[in-house]
Formats: sequence, structure tokens, C-alpha cells
Amino acid sequence: MQRWRLLLAWQGQGYVGWQRQPVGTSIQDVVERAVGAFFGGPPLPVWAAGRLDAGVHARGQVVAVDAPAPRSAEAWVRGLSRCLPRDIACLAAAPCAADFDPRREARGKWYRYRILERRGPCPLRRGFTWHLGRTLDADAMAAAAAGLHGRHDFTSFRAVGCSAASPVRAIHALRVSRAGDELRVDVEGDAFLRHQVRILVGTLVEVGLGARGPAWPAEVVAARDRGAAGPTAPAEGLWLQEVRYEAPWTWAAGAALGPEDGP
Amino acid sequence: MQRWRLLLAWQGQGYVGWQRQPVGTSIQDVVERAVGAFFGGPPLPVWAAGRLDAGVHARGQVVAVDAPAPRSAEAWVRGLSRCLPRDIACLAAAPCAADFDPRREARGKWYRYRILERRGPCPLRRGFTWHLGRTLDADAMAAAAAGLHGRHDFTSFRAVGCSAASPVRAIHALRVSRAGDELRVDVEGDAFLRHQVRILVGTLVEVGLGARGPAWPAEVVAARDRGAAGPTAPAEGLWLQEVRYEAPWTWAAGAALGPEDGP
Repeated sequence: MQRWRLLLAWQGQGYVGWQRQPVGTSIQDVVERAVGAFFGGPPLPVWAAGRLDAGVHARGQVVAVDAPAPRSAEAWVRGLSRCLPRDIACLAAAPCAADFDPRREARGKWYRYRILERRGPCPLRRGFTWHLGRTLDADAMAAAAAGLHGRHDFTSFRAVGCSAASPVRAIHALRVSRAGDELRVDVEGDAFLRHQVRILVGTLVEVGLGARGPAWPAEVVAARDRGAAGPTAPAEGLWLQEVRYEAPWTWAAGAALGPEDGP
Repeated sequence: MQRWRLLLAWQGQGYVGWQRQPVGTSIQDVVERAVGAFFGGPPLPVWAAGRLDAGVHARGQVVAVDAPAPRSAEAWVRGLSRCLPRDIACLAAAPCAADFDPRREARGKWYRYRILERRGPCPLRRGFTWHLGRTLDADAMAAAAAGLHGRHDFTSFRAVGCSAASPVRAIHALRVSRAGDELRVDVEGDAFLRHQVRILVGTLVEVGLGARGPAWPAEVVAARDRGAAGPTAPAEGLWLQEVRYEAPWTWAAGAALGPEDGP
């Protein structure tokens, strides 16, 4: 039995997130059924590098699956994508060690959060951005972001119901930038707590709107209290850009979608 | 009665194109109903700068409508967008002369055609690009495009059923470029025949695939025969980027979506 690692991308609208839920269609459900169909049988279990909330998009989720029969990498990409709905695709496939665990082996994750500042609507990015409709003070947000770098107890940025054993996480990079009429927050870290990126963005937006000063988010960290932070930003603006691995678990050049590919 | 000009954008999937058809929902139907609803009454007639095929997307269609009651530009943008489905929006509105005709006053149009070259699928751009899945020879296509500039009889690039009185049109610019894993054909001209851009792209793609040489498209023009040209490229890759006007019918800076805004 050969274990394979797969690189997946999807539009999050219409799904209840990665993980199976009592009600609604999860990406996991759809992928497990598609892998089963690819081998002409019932659904096959798939392990992912992490969960993603309902409505969140992925440019590069990584999952592992044990193949009941031999397949080439090309057959995986072509055949599995044929078994998937058009808003989910398998971008690349590669064989891996029988004990490869995409979550444990992951060395980091990169999330991007996209905020549409333009006042009027944009029908071309509905569901792909948070349409705030107000102009943010990007400099103040960047100054605030600087106070969140590094290893901290992120209890204030953790959803009620987060099951992680420890609230300590490291943020390696936190950048605020503009691209056209969008403001983007790029966050890189070893791993994240439930809703951490969305609460972080909701907190930075309070600064960007001038409701709080740039020093405030660091105070929120120190408070270790979810009530101290800003609101949770909507899921539709969040993108899992990349799950990072070390060799030999990196992907071939060109396998992944570029950071700007897509809506 | 004040006439207004409106700048509209939409996702073309799910519509039969701009113009009302016997079967299916047209953008025109939806906009006329929305304008009526905005004034609390039945649908109101709307005149457009041009038709667009089913599945074609618009970043900047221009239409005119006679308002039965006074409204501010801001009220138009906000109120009309509220009456429209989420995949259509009014980006800007401005009062205009009572005889303003968006088609007659247009000085040019800019279309972009997007071809996805990557072999694997991209679930984030489904419906927004033509997924060819093969790499094209962009240099050969650019050389071929050079032979199509200027004023020509474009009978070979005209759909059966095109109702234009003359097949002569002028192409002011025709550029082939790459952006990530997409090849883009940008076409600017005074006006276009039915399917002209899509047949033009289908013909250039024959060159890009090596099936024909770079001199062939100019021969196709000279043939004045639809049968001489390549196939009609799918509607889903086509974008109306901009309808151009002279002062005073230009739009305020920032009113339109940028050429890269959106999927």
C-alpha cells in the first residue's frame, strides 16, 4: 500500500470547511468520496495538514491518502480532479513514506487575508474578500503588526472551543500591504489556533479604522483574554496560501498555484 | 426626466448574455428589473454600449437609463446594487444629456481574453478563463497578431447571424502577454463584430499551438470567409474591460475596477 501526498485547492463558498460536520458538505467528505471513486470503490480516508473554517479558501492544502492500487502522479492529478466538483482540484500528487503525516511534518503555514476597501461592491470578488468598504490606515496596521511577531501566548486570539493543548504559537512574518483596492494581511507561522488569523485581522482592522492605537494589539496579547481582542473577521476573506515542508516533502516547481493566481 | 449613465460589472456565468433572449436570464432583464425596483415600480428600459455573449464577463459595461425621480449618484450606486444579485453591481453613476446613447458615443472598446495554460485544473478560475491546458508559443501569436492591426474587412471573423451592416472594423491594439500561468490577448478597437474577438483568439491559438504559421491569420483576413478562420474560443475566457468615451462622458478616477481587480 503506497501512501500519497496530494496538493489541493478550492473555493470555500458552499462548504462547511475541511472537516466533516454533522450538517452540510465538507471538503473532506467530497475529497474522500472522490478518492474512493478514483479507485472505483467506497470513500477512502484522507488526512489533512489542518482544518479550515467554513468559507475559507485554499490555494495549497496538503493531504495524505493510502492508495489501494498503483497509480502514476499524472493519473492522480487528472483522474482525481475528474471525480471532484469543479470548485475543488488536485494540483499535484507525489508518493511519500508510509508514515508521512501532513500535519506533523508541516514546518509552517502561510495565510493571506484580503480586505476590499473600495466603497462600492465588486461582483467579481464576492465571497473571495471581506468587503469592508472603508479605507484603512495601512501604516498604523503595519506598526501594530510589528508588536505581534514572535512567540506569544495567543489566548486572546483563540476561538472559544479551540481544542489545542497550548495557546503558545510563533508568528514568523506578519505583513500589511496594498494591491489595487485591496488591503492584504499575510501571516506566516509554525501553526495557528482556531480563528487565530481571523481574530488577528479583526483586531488589526480596529487599528486601521482608527478606533484603537497601534500599541493596542500587543496589549491584547498581554491580556490573555479573548474578550480583549477585536471581532473575528469573516471567513470569506481568508486564504490558506501554502503549507510548508522540508525536503523531501516539498513540491516540484510549478506544482502549486502562484500567490496571485485566482480570484 | 434625467438620463443617467451607469457603469456595471458582472460575472457572466449563469446568464444568457446582456440582451434579452426567449429563454434564460439576461443581464438586461435583471438590470431593468433592479432599476425598476430601485424606484419602487415595474422594470425600466436600459440601453447598453453593446451586447455581450452568454458567459462573457464585464468589468465596465456602460448603460443609460431615464430616471423617473431624482436620485444622487451615491444613491444610485448603493441602492441599485442592493436591488441586483451579488454577481452584478453598479460601480458608478453620473447624470448625462437626455440624448446620450452609450453605443453611439462610445469611442472604443477594450476586451481581454484569458487562456489558462497550466495542465492541471485551477478551481479558483473556473468559468473565468479558457482552460486550454497546453503551453502556447506567445512569440508566434504576437507575430501573427501584428498582421491583424488596422482597418480590415473582418468577414472571416464574424459569426453567422451577425447583423452589422458592414464587416469593416479597425483594431487599434492587439497584444499577447503572459501573467503567471495565463496567456492574455488584449484587443482594442472602435467596435467589434459578433464573436470577432473569440474567433480572433481561436485563430491565434492555432498559431500558438503550432498548427499554423504566424502569417496565416493575415491570410484568413484576406479570405473573407468564416470557414477560413480558427474555431470560436469559449465565452468564459472573454472580459469586456472598458468602454471608452471622450469628455464629458469619461468616469471619475477610481470609479471603474482596475484591469487586474477580480478573479
